[in-house]
Amino acid sequence: MKLYERYAAEIAALIEDGQLAPGDRLPSVREARARRGVSASTVFQAYQKLEREGLIQARPQSGFYVAATSAARMPDVPVAAPGGEAGEVTVSDLVFAVLGAARSGHAAPLGSAFPGPDLFPLAQLAKAAAKGLRRLAPETIVENLAPGNPRLREQIALRYRIDGIRLRPDEIVVTNGALEALNAALQAVTQPGDTVAIESPAFYAALQAIERLKLKALQIRTDPEHGIDVDALADALSRTRIAACWLMPTFQNPLGCLMPEARKRVLVALLARHAVPLIEDDVYGELYFGSQRPRPAKAYDEAGLVLHCSSFSKCLAPGYRVGWIAAGREAQRIQRLVLMTTMAASVPAQTAVLHYLEDGGYDRHLRRLRASLAARMNAAMQVVETAFPPGSRLTRPRGGYFLWLALPAGLDAMRLHEAALRNGIGFAPGHIFSPDLRFSDCLRINCGHAADAVLPALRRLGALAHELTRSTA
Amino acid sequence: MKLYERYAAEIAALIEDGQLAPGDRLPSVREARARRGVSASTVFQAYQKLEREGLIQARPQSGFYVAATSAARMPDVPVAAPGGEAGEVTVSDLVFAVLGAARSGHAAPLGSAFPGPDLFPLAQLAKAAAKGLRRLAPETIVENLAPGNPRLREQIALRYRIDGIRLRPDEIVVTNGALEALNAALQAVTQPGDTVAIESPAFYAALQAIERLKLKALQIRTDPEHGIDVDALADALSRTRIAACWLMPTFQNPLGCLMPEARKRVLVALLARHAVPLIEDDVYGELYFGSQRPRPAKAYDEAGLVLHCSSFSKCLAPGYRVGWIAAGREAQRIQRLVLMTTMAASVPAQTAVLHYLEDGGYDRHLRRLRASLAARMNAAMQVVETAFPPGSRLTRPRGGYFLWLALPAGLDAMRLHEAALRNGIGFAPGHIFSPDLRFSDCLRINCGHAADAVLPALRRLGALAHELTRSTA
Repeated sequence: MKLYERYAAEIAALIEDGQLAPGDRLPSVREARARRGVSASTVFQAYQKLEREGLIQARPQSGFYVAATSAARMPDVPVAAPGGEAGEVTVSDLVFAVLGAARSGHAAPLGSAFPGPDLFPLAQLAKAAAKGLRRLAPETIVENLAPGNPRLREQIALRYRIDGIRLRPDEIVVTNGALEALNAALQAVTQPGDTVAIESPAFYAALQAIERLKLKALQIRTDPEHGIDVDALADALSRTRIAACWLMPTFQNPLGCLMPEARKRVLVALLARHAVPLIEDDVYGELYFGSQRPRPAKAYDEAGLVLHCSSFSKCLAPGYRVGWIAAGREAQRIQRLVLMTTMAASVPAQTAVLHYLEDGGYDRHLRRLRASLAARMNAAMQVVETAFPPGSRLTRPRGGYFLWLALPAGLDAMRLHEAALRNGIGFAPGHIFSPDLRFSDCLRINCGHAADAVLPALRRLGALAHELTRSTA
Repeated sequence: MKLYERYAAEIAALIEDGQLAPGDRLPSVREARARRGVSASTVFQAYQKLEREGLIQARPQSGFYVAATSAARMPDVPVAAPGGEAGEVTVSDLVFAVLGAARSGHAAPLGSAFPGPDLFPLAQLAKAAAKGLRRLAPETIVENLAPGNPRLREQIALRYRIDGIRLRPDEIVVTNGALEALNAALQAVTQPGDTVAIESPAFYAALQAIERLKLKALQIRTDPEHGIDVDALADALSRTRIAACWLMPTFQNPLGCLMPEARKRVLVALLARHAVPLIEDDVYGELYFGSQRPRPAKAYDEAGLVLHCSSFSKCLAPGYRVGWIAAGREAQRIQRLVLMTTMAASVPAQTAVLHYLEDGGYDRHLRRLRASLAARMNAAMQVVETAFPPGSRLTRPRGGYFLWLALPAGLDAMRLHEAALRNGIGFAPGHIFSPDLRFSDCLRINCGHAADAVLPALRRLGALAHELTRSTA
């Protein structure tokens, strides 16, 4: 990342965080030079970039100002009200069809599940891998078997402590990405036929896991800004036997919603009263645009009922498949499940991440990553606001890299998907985020890739939506 | 490996292979120098090593001769006759208790499932990882998702072709070790309640997978030298609906038995007639002591019913967790299962193995590895033959690194196991190799670790068995 890009990302984060409000004047080039010691050209390039992204506006003879985006902004996505019955799930074929189409077609990466790979310190990870593997004592290989490399687990425990969460170190099991942790957690706490409460919409991998393990899904009303409706969940708990909840309280996929701390606390207490385990998917927790990491529900877990799953895949080492679970009272069962199925995350991956973490620099990387993602999402929102037809509605996540867009009434996201694929653009249609295809008017947009790939694709996608709206009307 | 060790390993392989028979005279030091161009000290050191391992004997004034091991050898292990009913499996707790005890107790590695880590080219793998990761283009990370890195799958397909087996490249899915491949295969072809035919004794991971997926196990009579009794399997198929077979036709764990090619061919034809999938665990196939790799059952698979699972964990890269499956007609289902649960083997592990394979040297490494394992197993057999009490019986595997020992009647392997653990020695008691604990008089011994760890432990174990036999009598 160049100096001007970093400077632009810092300003974008201040805007996103609300420390710079719409209409605020940015420092003049002279002021910025004096305060920050950066060159005039750096300031200019940064401001031009922010202007291109729609975050700031130049006013002739006056300077640069934070753009007034919220005034005329697209309406928020309304809360959907799912039906009350638990049902079987058969969405997996559709998920694979959609993901396969996006993968095989060399489509623009709006449908990808991962942020842009340009955002990660791959060179430093390669160095950490080389260093660690060169020094690897053969007899220590076996120490990487589940529950995982002891030093890596210590590093993970340390990050919980930094966030004020105390864990027994032996509660942590290293896994092949968060996905293995989540699947193992679900298998550990359910029997075939059980009911699992999920958000509405829900991450499709949760639906697939529920389908694979022959469970039933119960969708709970979920607010696109504040997450799952705890009252609705309480009501469901009083009516139905629920074996587990699989939720994403922080920057949910696909909504991007963030449960306020108080709501997380109430959620954990509610589940503790019913002795229902919470499988907490927290892979986006580090990708906040605000000033500090949102506390996970696990922070309030006194009963050992929260199985907190996360990974380094979205914030440090894509493809390394190093995740973990802080599994509370289920730790031993999870460890055994991993030993029986994959045995361990791989030695080179555990070794690389361990040495990277021990050598320092992770927090510096995270700061840059957050600023980049905030800037990319902001830029994408600006384009969506202008490019999509009237009647569209949009989420405003405070972290992560997904936007969730509801199309004007009558426009089916699958029709737009087909048109988009023909134009070399992928996205995730809303159909794959519920067992009953209820979000057929919605789409999830990944805006975590480079602006030169995302923004033109969004403009084109908006134009296609306009065309389909006209042909529908 | 030093020069003399390599030379000793070559001779050991010739002995194991039968090209040097008991009583054959070895070349004199002078002859060896002339023929091989090695120094006298290399020859001496090699011969001394082979003598220590009991493979050759010095005759005063005459030279070195291949030891006559087969004359007074311990009797073979007889064939066990399992009962005919399929049953539920609940052996997993015992497996974890046994493996956990061996792992936590810093015990001598006779109970380990892995060969000695000193046998692997860890330094070269580290270099291959460093080189590959340094050059990794960020946008190619996604190509490592299941079915796996295309170049790595090409390398794997190439090894099949070398062995005369033609595969569609898209039949191969890279997995987190063979264990993930095996578990995914079992899940792909069964429903809870189904019956799975297994060997008797069977690898405990098969039992655990059957237990985890709520299946039933049907044990089939298995000859300690020639593998599963195909007639007994045919009989079972005619009486019972069998959903799948999970077998290890080549150097089975724990027996080490090798099905002759003709028997493998009959097996595959039999299963094809009944349209029953064969999950073939072939992780030891490269570890043959003879002159060529035994063909897997997959070589005879015309119906696409053989799901051939293997990995690099036992023959190249321990802990890297890079395995694969050639899954025949189930390839797409397996790929989806992997995508839903772990997504992929890790990028650093796939990258390291890929670059190691592409750079050459794998076959040279394998030749050394086989010679070392043959020498280690021979040395272990020598010790077992003399150290264990009369009435003991022993397998003579032609590959791999496991010995299977039947104790004298009345001596329970679990009692010996307790005594052994108190003496800092682990092994795998026969109990964990069947659903009904029928092999309670047997033990599996890993002799693939360094002689200075294995041989003293075997002598001590033999002495303990003597003590227990006397106290039982």
